[in-house]
Amino acid sequence: VPQRLITLTTDFGLRDHFVAAMKGVILGIEPRARIIDITHEIDPFQITEAAFVVAQVYPFYPRRTVHVAVVDPGVGSERRPILIETAGQFFVGPDNGVFGLVCRQEKSKVRHISNRKYFLENVSNTFHGRDIFAPVAAYLSAGLRPSAFGPAIRDFLVPACAGPEQTGERSWRGTVLKVDRFGNLITNFRADEFAALAARPFRLRIGKRTVKRLAATFSDVAPGMIAVVAGSAGYLEVVANQESVAEKLNSGPGSSVRLILL
Amino acid sequence: VPQRLITLTTDFGLRDHFVAAMKGVILGIEPRARIIDITHEIDPFQITEAAFVVAQVYPFYPRRTVHVAVVDPGVGSERRPILIETAGQFFVGPDNGVFGLVCRQEKSKVRHISNRKYFLENVSNTFHGRDIFAPVAAYLSAGLRPSAFGPAIRDFLVPACAGPEQTGERSWRGTVLKVDRFGNLITNFRADEFAALAARPFRLRIGKRTVKRLAATFSDVAPGMIAVVAGSAGYLEVVANQESVAEKLNSGPGSSVRLILL
Amino acid sequence: VPQRLITLTTDFGLRDHFVAAMKGVILGIEPRARIIDITHEIDPFQITEAAFVVAQVYPFYPRRTVHVAVVDPGVGSERRPILIETAGQFFVGPDNGVFGLVCRQEKSKVRHISNRKYFLENVSNTFHGRDIFAPVAAYLSAGLRPSAFGPAIRDFLVPACAGPEQTGERSWRGTVLKVDRFGNLITNFRADEFAALAARPFRLRIGKRTVKRLAATFSDVAPGMIAVVAGSAGYLEVVANQESVAEKLNSGPGSSVRLILL
Repeated sequence: VPQRLITLTTDFGLRDHFVAAMKGVILGIEPRARIIDITHEIDPFQITEAAFVVAQVYPFYPRRTVHVAVVDPGVGSERRPILIETAGQFFVGPDNGVFGLVCRQEKSKVRHISNRKYFLENVSNTFHGRDIFAPVAAYLSAGLRPSAFGPAIRDFLVPACAGPEQTGERSWRGTVLKVDRFGNLITNFRADEFAALAARPFRLRIGKRTVKRLAATFSDVAPGMIAVVAGSAGYLEVVANQESVAEKLNSGPGSSVRLILL
Repeated sequence: VPQRLITLTTDFGLRDHFVAAMKGVILGIEPRARIIDITHEIDPFQITEAAFVVAQVYPFYPRRTVHVAVVDPGVGSERRPILIETAGQFFVGPDNGVFGLVCRQEKSKVRHISNRKYFLENVSNTFHGRDIFAPVAAYLSAGLRPSAFGPAIRDFLVPACAGPEQTGERSWRGTVLKVDRFGNLITNFRADEFAALAARPFRLRIGKRTVKRLAATFSDVAPGMIAVVAGSAGYLEVVANQESVAEKLNSGPGSSVRLILL
Repeated sequence: VPQRLITLTTDFGLRDHFVAAMKGVILGIEPRARIIDITHEIDPFQITEAAFVVAQVYPFYPRRTVHVAVVDPGVGSERRPILIETAGQFFVGPDNGVFGLVCRQEKSKVRHISNRKYFLENVSNTFHGRDIFAPVAAYLSAGLRPSAFGPAIRDFLVPACAGPEQTGERSWRGTVLKVDRFGNLITNFRADEFAALAARPFRLRIGKRTVKRLAATFSDVAPGMIAVVAGSAGYLEVVANQESVAEKLNSGPGSSVRLILL
């Protein structure tokens, strides 16, 4: 069973015609394509948020999946459309860092998508999701070789995506990467790199709050309390039990997080 | 044509990576699966709301559909994952009442999902939707027998889901089960049990408002008025014509509803 | 590869059971159907918004696609269910103008859907999406001839959908059709009819603001400025660079737009 999976990650929302127009273009070119919506609720223009979501999701998808991400404030400008081959999968979108967390993790080959033969006939200045990325994803899904779309490049954008900065022998300063729907704060401290939290006392400071407790899961946190868990995304998360920590602490993406191992 | 339908009902929302990770896991195991989103907009942790939605939807799905519901405040705790066979379909999720309105309606067999062979290799404490429920649904959809997943149990949770309480010879006290997108109040009075409303005068009290009129459909209600209809979900609904009754009466799930047949 | 595509456009939202019930009905009748969500986030009862979205999307879909649109304040009243054949595709929904922008663009044949054989057995008064439009779309997708569903009619609703009104030799008064997710104002000035904007100075007035600049794309607009672009939907749009013009100017659907060519 050939999968021919195409995933879509955008900041287009679901109220407008944008996403459905992309799907029509894809299915007109490759009727066998199976389209999976990752999310269309990326905050407008938030490339970093999209990069996080794509990086969380792609490891669970089968080989040859084509991942399209369109968060594209520079649409119609000089920024290039790119095609990345890595980890046995394909990534199609603008060269603006939206695949930054994918490239950093795996060996990859990057191409400049320049062969207009695989674009829609009339390319608008404002909707490359429909006019470039959708048809390229469809042709790729149909089996076209990556080299057909354009030459390999080396000067693509590699965004800074630093982990926490070490500020002392046992202290680090990091940040909140994302707030999930439940208000949990996903930090940029990788859980495997900070496994020591399970073995020794620590202080995690966020805003005016100091968190001292590592919990196994949400329901282990007493009502009203805040704890750290090694989250399912692979990072330390600051959480509560059926309460939004983001609201409680008035924190969000970019909020500073300090960690001290005692 | 084998359907291999898998439906998903969660409180994960569509902004985060949760739902898309589950879909990747399913399609990696069973590429022929067809995934239908019921909703991911259940209010966080609202098991009762999810139970209502699942119960409304499953009767319209074909035999052998696998319905996955993940509203799971107790994830990682002792609450068990369960698999229900009933009405020719399968239901996979936590043993917390999320299938309470399904079990009450039909004969069913319930199993404790305990065979770790069908889980992801690393099971997180906080995301069993991805690590347990998605792979189990995929293997089930692929044709594995329910008995492979674990033993039958009898002590699963059967939530209280009372209909209205009779408070006098011709009076009842019920509640609002759900507010729909249009602001209609879906009560727990079953329309078929209260068919008498069509034949005799009644008073339905909600908040400070008394409703006396049964309408056939929304457009039969005069602007500014409120009426009762026998709704498409099988319950009496309190409705207006292109206005939100929920806002007008400041009512919602749990609001008290009193009915008197005159 | 037969497509058997069915698209859905509704104002049902994604929180409730409505859309998922429609999908169950469709897949129960035609298991091979492939269902594409256009949007379910049409503002409640906004027929004009739905008409715009459907018109934007259908040209990108393959022949024989069945487009279902259910924005239906008159459900259960005398308004008729209709089936339109046009542009090699099918359109199924209420006769209330929801396909008004499709019919205006193409030759079409319109039928009154009246053959109850293709409805669900019990038709509710309030949910024809599930009980009439979903099964009709499924049977149509399965290959049934349009004439099976009911007789051709000529007195269907053709909504007024005027372009801008000419108010002087070089001046027009138009309106905002839609605000997209990014806050861009999509006007009813067709970009091809007003291509002269590229060649000569103009003044576009909206609220208290006068816009003088035509930009090629969003990123050409200086921060804080407002410009006009020939948008991907085929209309002139009033836009900014990563800012919501709708919020900036407190404008939305129906806002007046005046254009003067100098």
